[in-house]
Amino acid sequence: MSSFGRYNSQSQSYAPSAPALPEEHPYGTTTSSTPSNYNHGSGYTTTSTSGHGPSSYNHGSGYGQGSSYGYPTFPPGTDPDLIRSFQIVDKDRSGFIDENELQQALSSGFHWFSLRTIGLLTFLFKNPNDPSRIGPKEFGAIWSCLGRWREIFERYDRDKSGKIDPMELRDALYGTGYAVPASVLQLLISKHDDGSGRRVELGFDSFVECGMIVKGLTDKFKEKDRHSTGSATLSYDTFMTMVLPFLLTYD
Amino acid sequence: MSSFGRYNSQSQSYAPSAPALPEEHPYGTTTSSTPSNYNHGSGYTTTSTSGHGPSSYNHGSGYGQGSSYGYPTFPPGTDPDLIRSFQIVDKDRSGFIDENELQQALSSGFHWFSLRTIGLLTFLFKNPNDPSRIGPKEFGAIWSCLGRWREIFERYDRDKSGKIDPMELRDALYGTGYAVPASVLQLLISKHDDGSGRRVELGFDSFVECGMIVKGLTDKFKEKDRHSTGSATLSYDTFMTMVLPFLLTYD
Repeated sequence: MSSFGRYNSQSQSYAPSAPALPEEHPYGTTTSSTPSNYNHGSGYTTTSTSGHGPSSYNHGSGYGQGSSYGYPTFPPGTDPDLIRSFQIVDKDRSGFIDENELQQALSSGFHWFSLRTIGLLTFLFKNPNDPSRIGPKEFGAIWSCLGRWREIFERYDRDKSGKIDPMELRDALYGTGYAVPASVLQLLISKHDDGSGRRVELGFDSFVECGMIVKGLTDKFKEKDRHSTGSATLSYDTFMTMVLPFLLTYD
Repeated sequence: MSSFGRYNSQSQSYAPSAPALPEEHPYGTTTSSTPSNYNHGSGYTTTSTSGHGPSSYNHGSGYGQGSSYGYPTFPPGTDPDLIRSFQIVDKDRSGFIDENELQQALSSGFHWFSLRTIGLLTFLFKNPNDPSRIGPKEFGAIWSCLGRWREIFERYDRDKSGKIDPMELRDALYGTGYAVPASVLQLLISKHDDGSGRRVELGFDSFVECGMIVKGLTDKFKEKDRHSTGSATLSYDTFMTMVLPFLLTYD
């Protein structure tokens, strides 16, 4: 998690400025105010997230693998809660867990996540060389990521209700580096709108799901928008291969 | 279901030619041969599907609503199996069913579909003015669409095994008007590859899911590729609003 410098846009109108986030913490630790130059147009990233797109999520942590007995291990200094959560569900001591076990393991440390969110986390953090298994390295990266999302959630859940509303979601995404247009925010919220007229609010599970989808798709788009103009020319093939993995993740 | 003429590309290399499909049947009724000009490049549609993107799916059928008692009704001539399947699950006689009831109703006429596929069908055929309810009109359109997918499935399941393999899937999608590049086909299949080395085969449920996703996303892309060049310039906002509804459908 090293390269979270400012996202330097060639066109300032497309890249609203936001407080630079500390290098040592990818999502920042400062208490946030509403971004001053929030832009509902084509702007979409407020800080650089290079190297943290879905394909590279799992390269962020330093969890090592391989002990003298061949059992993948956690490196010294790893949070004991993390190790315990993993080992409790790894009943066959294989050193790897599946999605159902991941769901159980994360519920002890964070929250009960839907299998939909679990599938998305697995997809974003999978080891490209061994995509079907979640080992200590992948688990550590997911745990670390969720820790950051939790910090963000708690920071923007200003009334400490355990839920965040649409404006808090917008601010939270902006605070993590993603300036989400109003149309996109509306779509994210619409799924949780039951038509009753009540105010839409998201719990932590839905918040993580929204955040991961926005981050994953935006990072993919940004790879194609090399000059940060706010638009990209995509072939049909590129478009489909960018998007399909997100759709085919959920079971 | 009217405008299935040839898809006239300005660049023939991007639009492989295929036999024109009969006007009266959107997916064709002829026994298909492998398309002669199949193109794995940027080509993606083989016949025009204008007017049949997800947003207009539900305008295809003629199911009326409203009787003298206010109960939405099916028009004269509707397949009795369709009506029976709907009414059996509409236990409160409200004239509307939810996704779980839709799953039950379709299992009697077609196949047991996963809630994932049910969610996708509901999304693609929903009434924009009343998106949370599935009435006779929406149910009729879904039933009709699945009937066409079943015809296609049976046509391409050449050994009548109840499964189709990747090449049959490619040919089936091509036969419906979608020239899927090899990279996209690979992604569609990868979800069903368990790594055991066995040949990947798809049942009807997975086939419908693949078909609906390809059709939905391709039609969306085609709306932006007005000159049929095989590529489109998308703003970040447009890209996200094109794609997000597909991701936010599944629960």
